[in-house]
Formats: sequence, structure tokens, C-alpha cells
Amino acid sequence: MISLEMLYDAQRVLRDVARLTPVFSAPKIGENIYIKAENQQLTGSFKLRGAFNKIHSLTPEEKAKGVIACSAGNHAQGVALSATRNGIKSVICMPEGAPLSKVEATKAYGAEVVLVPGVYDDAHDKAVELAEEYGYTFAHPFDDEYVIAGQGTIGLEILQQLPDVDTVVVPIGGGGLISGVAYAIKAIRPECKVIGVQAAGAPSMYTSRKNGKITKLDSVSTIADGIAVKEPGELTFELCQKYVDDIVTVTEDEIATAILALMEGQKTVAEGAGATSVAAAMFKKFDTSGKVVCVVSGGNIDVNILSRVITKGLTKSGRITEITTKVLDKPGQLINLLQVVAQTGANIMSVSHEREAEKSEINSCVVSMVLETRNPAHVAEIKGALQSKGYELLD
Amino acid sequence: MISLEMLYDAQRVLRDVARLTPVFSAPKIGENIYIKAENQQLTGSFKLRGAFNKIHSLTPEEKAKGVIACSAGNHAQGVALSATRNGIKSVICMPEGAPLSKVEATKAYGAEVVLVPGVYDDAHDKAVELAEEYGYTFAHPFDDEYVIAGQGTIGLEILQQLPDVDTVVVPIGGGGLISGVAYAIKAIRPECKVIGVQAAGAPSMYTSRKNGKITKLDSVSTIADGIAVKEPGELTFELCQKYVDDIVTVTEDEIATAILALMEGQKTVAEGAGATSVAAAMFKKFDTSGKVVCVVSGGNIDVNILSRVITKGLTKSGRITEITTKVLDKPGQLINLLQVVAQTGANIMSVSHEREAEKSEINSCVVSMVLETRNPAHVAEIKGALQSKGYELLD
Repeated sequence: MISLEMLYDAQRVLRDVARLTPVFSAPKIGENIYIKAENQQLTGSFKLRGAFNKIHSLTPEEKAKGVIACSAGNHAQGVALSATRNGIKSVICMPEGAPLSKVEATKAYGAEVVLVPGVYDDAHDKAVELAEEYGYTFAHPFDDEYVIAGQGTIGLEILQQLPDVDTVVVPIGGGGLISGVAYAIKAIRPECKVIGVQAAGAPSMYTSRKNGKITKLDSVSTIADGIAVKEPGELTFELCQKYVDDIVTVTEDEIATAILALMEGQKTVAEGAGATSVAAAMFKKFDTSGKVVCVVSGGNIDVNILSRVITKGLTKSGRITEITTKVLDKPGQLINLLQVVAQTGANIMSVSHEREAEKSEINSCVVSMVLETRNPAHVAEIKGALQSKGYELLD
Repeated sequence: MISLEMLYDAQRVLRDVARLTPVFSAPKIGENIYIKAENQQLTGSFKLRGAFNKIHSLTPEEKAKGVIACSAGNHAQGVALSATRNGIKSVICMPEGAPLSKVEATKAYGAEVVLVPGVYDDAHDKAVELAEEYGYTFAHPFDDEYVIAGQGTIGLEILQQLPDVDTVVVPIGGGGLISGVAYAIKAIRPECKVIGVQAAGAPSMYTSRKNGKITKLDSVSTIADGIAVKEPGELTFELCQKYVDDIVTVTEDEIATAILALMEGQKTVAEGAGATSVAAAMFKKFDTSGKVVCVVSGGNIDVNILSRVITKGLTKSGRITEITTKVLDKPGQLINLLQVVAQTGANIMSVSHEREAEKSEINSCVVSMVLETRNPAHVAEIKGALQSKGYELLD
């Protein structure tokens, strides 16, 4: 079983490998909120710590045969880099549809990538099969004491970097990260609270805790793909039951809002999973008094998704607005409309002007505009200006 | 004139105010490239350092009257927070069209904001007028020795954080940042090179250096708005001539590519000005051998612009593609086309299907698709698949 000695051993093992990621205050999120920026870890997430510690612990015979893992995400990159740094072979099974950027990154860290037809479970089965066939050690993403001890070094660092921390908030997928962090915190500073966060669309540890036993979800769905796990581990469930004070959930909108707040306020890029801790603090899902450290566990978000998150966040905060109205089908009508908009100071991003739209009568056209606006009050002002000029606002 | 003592004094003055921002390696940018993350400074840019040091140096009489500045950007926020922390009044003149987010941020730091009709020059004139009328001290954004000494603390920190640095790369607008940094570096470690970077669309220091005298540009245009300065300062020009080894320029596309690389590779958000140093390293604008520290001077980029930068970067790297073709104007034709695309593994972001487009003949429709793609090879594959099925590709 895990011990404080194992955590300090892991810290020594990781000394020249993992970055000591910064803890910094996040005043735009909250006066008393701090970020442990594990998104700035090598490979872009905390996974390197546990994977390296695990691989370092293997016997020479095991090392000679190599390791195998199944992941299309952060674990893949953590295992690949860790194996390469230990001078051993790694094989990563990924579902065939994995984003090419993740495949390329994993290969770049030195792994052999096997693309398996089908979904995650097929890739997992293939990895188990190859492990048996070639004698590879299977590197579990979370339910392993060396992995947990590696992740726990984050807890040690937080206590060194901000000794008077009152609450540490940690994202939960399979539970490896929080198990290690909570163990470290409670062993050294038991009065510090540890709060776990899950996406409401993937609440496996939350549900298991409520049921008092490990519970497998039928399906999970969230932009926080790094923590979209159907079932906690046995070891991690036990450690969470013992050392975690509470587990809360956050919605997709709350996660998106936190990603945007981290970018704008703290100039740092978090993936969905990494931002859940900040979302929980922003939306007061727990008692946020005292010094609160939110572990931002990773930053490997697809920039396409980031672009959509930005757009969604801007819409929610009234900085992008879509307005649809009707104009008469005769010359000069669109110009008149655009002049009303221009006078309100809104910037036009796109206009679509359709004569044959479903909503338009025979003598009118439907115009949809996407506008850059300042805030909800500005949006209301623009709508008011249009209505006062006789424009009907459509949904 | 500036001295090493002034820089160490500034470091003491700033100790409990400015963050000691991290220096971290950026292996995805280059093996030997490091980032000095001044985008994580309070107020989101280095400007706090110089502004605070200047305001701290004022006499009690000057402090009693307060300070005034003219800026719609980082200098505004730096002066506002610095004045508030010194317990004195600040007035910031901004052109009326300044983004509301900047106005709000500046007010939030405690400044009184005066919105002046017209452009930057009008706001500047107003600030000078108010300074005379009310006896405010005018806080110059760069051409001031206390400001330069404050920015120079970044140079001291770099030498403390990475003592064996070989080259330091610094964005140049008015020249305050590089003057301080270059002075510090050359005073302590003269064999370390200092390279300045300007946007090709705003090369005022570059041009002045070439001409051997201060030269004012007629106009400047760049997404790096933080360094869009028409004319260097007298003091900063002199210090650059003495202590800066070379000045290079980067294009708008290079800046956008660097912003995207910092987000994806280093999980950090840089504004255009802040990314120019990284752009210069990525595109080998100077001898990049040895350990290179790029000062990322700020992160205050409008998220709308960020969204556009991402889209542009994705297009450039073949991860978003727009393809336009024609289909016959009869049922099922669009489905056939989309099936060909689906088989290539591309994801459709948007489709526009127009019967009456200029390019379509009487019996055909023009279809434009925006696709999520993997890389330029994937784009070529999709285009090849479409052509082999007889689809004509339009521009």
C-alpha cells in the first residue's frame, strides 16, 4: 500500500525529469484562488509523473521487455516520454480514429503506436493481448500505487510552495491524481481540505461515492475528455473514500467558462479536465474561503475545440451576438439596417442575406448578422435600436 | 543616466509588487529555447514594473497630485495598478473607441478613465493638457529612466534564473523594455547577445537604427498592437544603439504562427507583441545557437483576435481547409459529395450550397465546405479523392 516514503521516493525519482510547475495567484478568478499549473508540465499534463515513477520501478527484466499502454490522450504521451527517458521500448494502442496530432505527439516522444480498428475498448483489448504475447508490462493509467505515488508529488509540491493552503481542488477521472494528492496532503497537513471535481457528464467517482461502492457508468459525455472515465479504480476508490473530503460536479458550460477565464485572466491554456477544478471554485461548488489551490491538471486541448469554447464563452458573456431580422426586398434596405447597427458601435463579423428563407414573406428577405458586442447591455441596446426603427427580431 | 544601482533599487522596490515570472524551456519551439513568461505578470504584461518604479520614485508633493497617462493598452493597466498600490490617484486618457474590456480592466485597477473623442494622438494631447491644468505627473510609457530601470529587472531575473544564457530576445515598441534588459545583461554578462524584434509593419527602432538617427514612421499596422509605435524615444534609442546587438523584424504570419505555437506547445497565451520574440527564434531571424531566452512580454490579446489567429494558424498548417466544387442541381447530389468527403476522414465544419452563385451554370449548384483536416497531405488526399470522382475544384 501507498506510504509517505513512496511519495518522497517518487519526488527524488522525478527530480531531473518532471518540471516543478509553478503555483501562482489567480486574482481575476478570485482573491484567494491559486493555480497549480500542471498544464505546463512536460507532455502538457501531470501524467508524466505517475508514468515515469512506474516505469522507473520496473525490474531490469521487465524493462528489457518494454511497456504497453492504451490511451489516445495524456497517458499515452506520459508513458512514451517516460519509457524513452528510461531507455526502454513503449507500445501505445490507440483507437483508429484518434486525432492525428495525438498520434504524432506520442510517436515524437519515442513510442511505437498501434492503431486499432474500433473504439477505446478495442484498443484496450489489443493492448492486453499484446502484453501477454510479448511480455510487455501493462502501464495502468491510474490504478497502480507507483502511478499514484508519482501523481502525489504534486501534493508535496503544493505544500512546499504554499504552506498555508486551506483547500486543494483536484479533477477526478480514474482517480489516480486525487488519490496521490489527497494522501500527501492528509499525511502532512490533515486540516487542509481536499475537494474532488468531476464533469457532470462523467460522474463515476461521484456516483460510486454516493453508492458507497464502485459503480460503472453506462456512458460518459463531456468536453473534459481527459476525465471521461466510466469506472474508478479499486485502489483509487478506496483512497478517495479515506482521504477526500468531498466530490462535486461541474457542467459543460461551467467548464467552458473556466477555460476562457484561465485564458483571459491568467494567460494559461487548460484542457477541459484541467479546468474543472477552477470551474468548481468559480461557481462556488464548495466552501471557497481561505487559500484555495486549484490543480489545473493538463493543457492538451485541441485548438479547434478551443476555438469553439472561445466562441461559446463570448456568446455567453454578450461579446458575440447573432441577430436575425427582416428587410424589404428592394434596393438600399440592407444598407439602412447596417447603418442602424453601425451607430450602436457593434462590429459586424458576418452577414447572411437570404431572399428565399422559410421565414421571409414574398416581398422580404431574412438577414442574419453575427456581431462583436461589448456586453449584454450593449446587446440589449442594439436590439432596442433596431426595434425602435421598426425591425422585427426573429429567433 | 541609468546605472546598475538603479536596476537593483528597482528590484527591491518591486519585490513585493511584481511577480517573479518563471523562465521555462519550450522544447516544442526548440530544444534550446526558453520563455521568460512576463505574460504571467500582474496586469498581464511587463508594464507594471516600469510604471510602479516610476510612481514609487515621485516626491510626496508629486504623489499628492497624482499621475496621468495616455494608453489604451498595457501601460494603462500598469499605471493604474501602480498608482493604486502607492495610494495615489491616476487618470488615464484613452481614445473613445478603446475596447470596453480594456476600459473596464483599467477602472478595476483603480484609475479614473477619460475617454477622448478621436484617435491616440488626441488622447495624448488631452493628457498633456490635463497634466498642466491639474499638476499631474505625466507617466511616459518608455522614455524615462525609472521606467527603463523597472523593465530592466527582467534582465536581472533572467541572469539569476538561467545564468548560462547565450542570447536574450526582446520585443521592441518604444524601446523601454529592451533598453532596461540590454543594460542589465551587458553590465553583468557582456558576452550574452541581446536581439531586438519589431513587427515588420511597425519597424520604427529598426529603421532608426538603419538610418543612424531617430526616424518617425508615417503609419504603423500590425496585430502586435502593443509595439505599434511610430517613433522610438531619445533615451531608448541611445541605449539600443549602445547595448543591443541586432534588431530584426517578423511578419504578421510569423507572429500568428508563434502565438499558436505558444498556445499549443507551451500552453501559454501571448499577445502579438509578446510573441514576436518567439517568432524571431522560430523563423531563425538571428543565430539561434546556444541557450536562447525569448521574453514573452505580455498576454493581453483580445479573445476575438485570438480566435482569428487560431483559425489562420489552422488553415496555414492544413488543419482547416475550404473546398469549393460544383454538383448537379438534382436530388441526392450533395449526399454523394459528402460521402466522398466522409470517406477521407475529414470532419465537416460548415457547408454552403448555393443554386444561384455566380460560378454555377444553369443546371448546377456551387458547394463550399469548410473541413477539419489533419495536415497538408490529408488536404491533398481529399482533393485527389474528389477529382477522381469527377468533381471540379473551384478557387
